[in-house]
Amino acid sequence: MALAYDGAIQRLIDAFNRLPGIGPKGAQRIAFHLLSAPDEEANELVEAIEEVKAKVRFCDICGNVCESSPCPVCADPRRDHTIICVVEEPKDVMSVERTREYRGLYHVLGGAINPMANVGPEDLSIAKLLDRLKTNEVQEVILALDPNIEGEATTTYLSRLLTPVGIKVTRLASGLPVGSDLEYADEITLGRALAGRREA
Amino acid sequence: MALAYDGAIQRLIDAFNRLPGIGPKGAQRIAFHLLSAPDEEANELVEAIEEVKAKVRFCDICGNVCESSPCPVCADPRRDHTIICVVEEPKDVMSVERTREYRGLYHVLGGAINPMANVGPEDLSIAKLLDRLKTNEVQEVILALDPNIEGEATTTYLSRLLTPVGIKVTRLASGLPVGSDLEYADEITLGRALAGRREA
Repeated sequence: MALAYDGAIQRLIDAFNRLPGIGPKGAQRIAFHLLSAPDEEANELVEAIEEVKAKVRFCDICGNVCESSPCPVCADPRRDHTIICVVEEPKDVMSVERTREYRGLYHVLGGAINPMANVGPEDLSIAKLLDRLKTNEVQEVILALDPNIEGEATTTYLSRLLTPVGIKVTRLASGLPVGSDLEYADEITLGRALAGRREA
Repeated sequence: MALAYDGAIQRLIDAFNRLPGIGPKGAQRIAFHLLSAPDEEANELVEAIEEVKAKVRFCDICGNVCESSPCPVCADPRRDHTIICVVEEPKDVMSVERTREYRGLYHVLGGAINPMANVGPEDLSIAKLLDRLKTNEVQEVILALDPNIEGEATTTYLSRLLTPVGIKVTRLASGLPVGSDLEYADEITLGRALAGRREA
């Protein structure tokens, strides 16, 4: 017996190991779990993967993932079509939706400007965003990118690009996370919280 | 838009969330990774799952997972057929193999005695182990169960069961893990290491 598992098991471990956030030990645990799990559980997983790859597409308008284009948000007349919230990835749409504070539309860029990974503005869905702004319907663009270097760079880029268009451009507030300790806040976050202080 | 994702994506997230060691955030990350990954990667994963469920079976002799029965270890005449190492799960076989210290056979119990989970001796592959001992070929049984409560209980049970059979029954040594600090050893482990001390 070689030091790797029999062919099929090792291939399954390798396949799970390639997924983000799953290491060799975790992949082995999952593989043995599936091995001894009822066939239905493995089938459900297989069908879910195949269904997503077959059905899920990107909304022609906002770029979010959906099963029909335009997506339910873009197609919903009850949403506020005068505001567009710009995010990096489809999962960020979900995060904003979860706040239940936002009733406008979205625009998914598909990433952020990142010179280290060779991602420039031309690789993002920016031309499509500009197209959407041509209709005069949109009055505000909220830049809701990740508060890291790439997100900040993209926010600055989009802010400079959109401000001359004459549309209100806003960005998410920086500050202390709710429920956190002042003591453990990093100095940049605390600095931003100070700079952005408001009347109590 | 509801607070869950569109049907297919949510079903994929749920399917990954059910796997051991994957939480809701990790499942979401994997689902979106697969969504934007090339079709080949998703196909490889699907094929690996289907291959394992179709091909992998349990060795009729030792109970280890394999693609052909008897498994390569049981069928290998160069292995020492006079020693059987008893383990809980197929993955434990791999752990022992990795030491490169063992050239005997294995017997996979399929778990350990655990009254809390309603697993009794009758749920483990013990009858098959006794059958294997009838041939007179086997001279030693090494009990290599997990050093936790369930493993200890199973070791005690098997030791009492096998000793009257007249076969040498041994168990793995307890003691300090190599590379660890005495300071951080728990008192039970350190106690076992003291009790099991040998000439230096």
